[in-house]
Amino acid sequence: MASFASDYGAEAGSASSKIGTWADFDMRVEPYRLSAVDALKAFESDSLTVEDYARSLLDRIKERDDVVKAWIYLDADQILEDAKALDRVPKSERGPLHGVGVAVKDVIYTKGMPTQHNSPIYKDSQPEVDAGSVAMLRNAGALILGKTTTTEFAANTVGTKTSNAHDPNRTPGGSSSGSGAAVADFQAPLALGTQTGGSMIRPASFNGTWAIKPTWNSVSREGQKIYSLSLDTVGWYGRCVEDLELVGKVFGLADDEVPRPLSNGVKGLKFAFMKTMVWNHAGSGTRNAFESGKQLLKDAGAEVEELDFPEEFSKLPTWHTVMLFSDGRVAFRPEYYMAKSSLAPDLVEHVEEYHGYTRKQYLEAFDGIAALRPKWDAIAEKYAAVIAPSVPDVAPEGLDRTGSAVFQGIWTTLHVPIVNVPAFRGEENLPIGLSLTSARYRDQNLMNVAREVGKVWIKDS
Amino acid sequence: MASFASDYGAEAGSASSKIGTWADFDMRVEPYRLSAVDALKAFESDSLTVEDYARSLLDRIKERDDVVKAWIYLDADQILEDAKALDRVPKSERGPLHGVGVAVKDVIYTKGMPTQHNSPIYKDSQPEVDAGSVAMLRNAGALILGKTTTTEFAANTVGTKTSNAHDPNRTPGGSSSGSGAAVADFQAPLALGTQTGGSMIRPASFNGTWAIKPTWNSVSREGQKIYSLSLDTVGWYGRCVEDLELVGKVFGLADDEVPRPLSNGVKGLKFAFMKTMVWNHAGSGTRNAFESGKQLLKDAGAEVEELDFPEEFSKLPTWHTVMLFSDGRVAFRPEYYMAKSSLAPDLVEHVEEYHGYTRKQYLEAFDGIAALRPKWDAIAEKYAAVIAPSVPDVAPEGLDRTGSAVFQGIWTTLHVPIVNVPAFRGEENLPIGLSLTSARYRDQNLMNVAREVGKVWIKDS
Repeated sequence: MASFASDYGAEAGSASSKIGTWADFDMRVEPYRLSAVDALKAFESDSLTVEDYARSLLDRIKERDDVVKAWIYLDADQILEDAKALDRVPKSERGPLHGVGVAVKDVIYTKGMPTQHNSPIYKDSQPEVDAGSVAMLRNAGALILGKTTTTEFAANTVGTKTSNAHDPNRTPGGSSSGSGAAVADFQAPLALGTQTGGSMIRPASFNGTWAIKPTWNSVSREGQKIYSLSLDTVGWYGRCVEDLELVGKVFGLADDEVPRPLSNGVKGLKFAFMKTMVWNHAGSGTRNAFESGKQLLKDAGAEVEELDFPEEFSKLPTWHTVMLFSDGRVAFRPEYYMAKSSLAPDLVEHVEEYHGYTRKQYLEAFDGIAALRPKWDAIAEKYAAVIAPSVPDVAPEGLDRTGSAVFQGIWTTLHVPIVNVPAFRGEENLPIGLSLTSARYRDQNLMNVAREVGKVWIKDS
Repeated sequence: MASFASDYGAEAGSASSKIGTWADFDMRVEPYRLSAVDALKAFESDSLTVEDYARSLLDRIKERDDVVKAWIYLDADQILEDAKALDRVPKSERGPLHGVGVAVKDVIYTKGMPTQHNSPIYKDSQPEVDAGSVAMLRNAGALILGKTTTTEFAANTVGTKTSNAHDPNRTPGGSSSGSGAAVADFQAPLALGTQTGGSMIRPASFNGTWAIKPTWNSVSREGQKIYSLSLDTVGWYGRCVEDLELVGKVFGLADDEVPRPLSNGVKGLKFAFMKTMVWNHAGSGTRNAFESGKQLLKDAGAEVEELDFPEEFSKLPTWHTVMLFSDGRVAFRPEYYMAKSSLAPDLVEHVEEYHGYTRKQYLEAFDGIAALRPKWDAIAEKYAAVIAPSVPDVAPEGLDRTGSAVFQGIWTTLHVPIVNVPAFRGEENLPIGLSLTSARYRDQNLMNVAREVGKVWIKDS
């Protein structure tokens, strides 16, 4: 939970009072609303100190935490101390993320903070080591804000305390529940999450924020709890493509060929729209977004076609399930023996092989998916991006469950990058996104294309 | 380094003096020489306390540590405290590894002990969390003895301080240098290691001990430093097959079908002997072991044939290299940014892409290997086991380098289980093993077969 100890509250007013001194920015914008890229500009131009920026973020968190409850650990004093230390770093020695606030999903190790995986087995557990991703962020000068809620071990769909940033009675999605909600709610400009099924993109769509799940194994997963070794991928949330790209650079995400700026926008680019083999799960929100997205791109001069998976891809959803459950058998065996009664019943079932999948069936899935990956790449290479649903519909009501990953498991198994573009609105004006995906290791290109697609789809961009 | 603090030394004599009281065991056997299986029997029959057993192991370590230098961390007082606590556990509550000493390679997290990866970047680093493997061992009642030496991040071939258990002027192999040497030298009956190229089996062959590298992802790798996500595998050393099987059970290693006891030994079993595409690396020790192994099995009534890889497997060694270097780029980027100057030059080269491998070449290797795995399984299923060299020859002289993994990378990339059978002797009577391998997820069967092969090959068994 968030801790607002000592004199932090008393000083909190100082942030807003300094906004009027900014030179380069819209004075109506509170610091907490800044994108990472804009915060960096503000620090660089001395329009804002990291300390005041941190106070503004903390004010926002304090204002909203009773409702959104995105944080499982946050120490305001420590944040301010770290912020002050960053302010003392000479400009010539500052990193590419100097001072930018980042929230970290609580299945990722962070020095100086507990990592509890939403499991009583790891209550107050504090491995004093940074995950690879966190080490890179910290080294780049990021201000690590705290830990955000996750479903248990990022491995099931039981809701956390966190609510959707747009409606306290709806789920923020999962498993990266707190990270998705925190970024959408302006409590952090950036946040780390993970995806094994749809754990990055679902919260992005439900909360209405940008997110990328990069190509599998393209970014270090050191220090991140394992569910499925072959599928788990660290990803990140931001409120614009530029912020996703910024983090990608720090993480060393790079295509073989650096993509060129798309000076004509989407004009002349070719897109495939895929309903996929699970389209029967799509509700009105997704159906409307899909049609609007297509029409808007056409209107903007893009070439658009509908595409179906070849027949041999039909087993992907089943194979994804077989892999998850079988990998879960291996992943949770240690916890099962440490404290079976403290492990979620569905994870106990993984270990006890309640599913009944044999090793032979596992290999059929593992090898079958492996054989499809290069085939998918060859198809995807024909398009600037492939566009598909992010989720069945807007965030469902209730906090008990985090919703369905049915539209994401397909892409996660294929190891491809996925970007959620938070462009549309569904029922009750709630956000709904579409996913842009591509071949593996075309992450930079995908973000480059997503920027232009976003300009077409998002009215105020 | 080993710490023999406080009054441990003064009490050390008590262990040997109690050996005479054993009921069920050869009274000439010092406790430290017991296999895990025999130590369990001794505890069960009250012939030995865990404390006295621990003292015996500590005596052995003290006697030999100046020469072998297998340990990077060992706290004798803590071991004795843990041993006494285990002695207090009622028999009905004891685990399947109750009291058995286990050494842990220092790239695997252990609560209460540092994990330093042989890297100055992680000097004294102590993540207070057990790796999945260690958690399972501890829960099974194992006595975690300490941490054993490793090459830097288990990712290069620069030698450690550790020497071969049979010759202080020769390498113990790597990267699991300390674990292999400690088990062979009777300083621990069991030890955890890891293999990405040949890091389990090379030390097993060089030091003359049994070892298994199980099927990739068949055992939790949680809390084990990543080099190559697709190849790294936790494995373990023991001095007999039964001890390997014991640990396998604790780790949940299980085939689809439980193998039946081979009541006729190797008689009628079919074996393939494979020189592999890198046979030109084999020295006289391996060549002789290969021929002896074949002849002995024939003489014992086994069916033996020589087998070559189909042509399409010829790129395996190259693909293994491409994967290692490319995965190393991702794995060591965090350390590169934290402290480039403290990172080994060859690992810096990984991150800086000195190798020049593109993402496209990486995918060609990744997908190419993936396509070969089921093809290999289909070939291997025709045999009780496939037999191949473990190493080029006996342990080379000098401690600077840990030797070549050339004969192991092939199998590691194929994800198959590998058992080193420490059966032969080469130059200067130094140990040399042969590898038994099979299809994936046939680990239990492989150990079952290896037991019978060991009976034929090893004179005194």
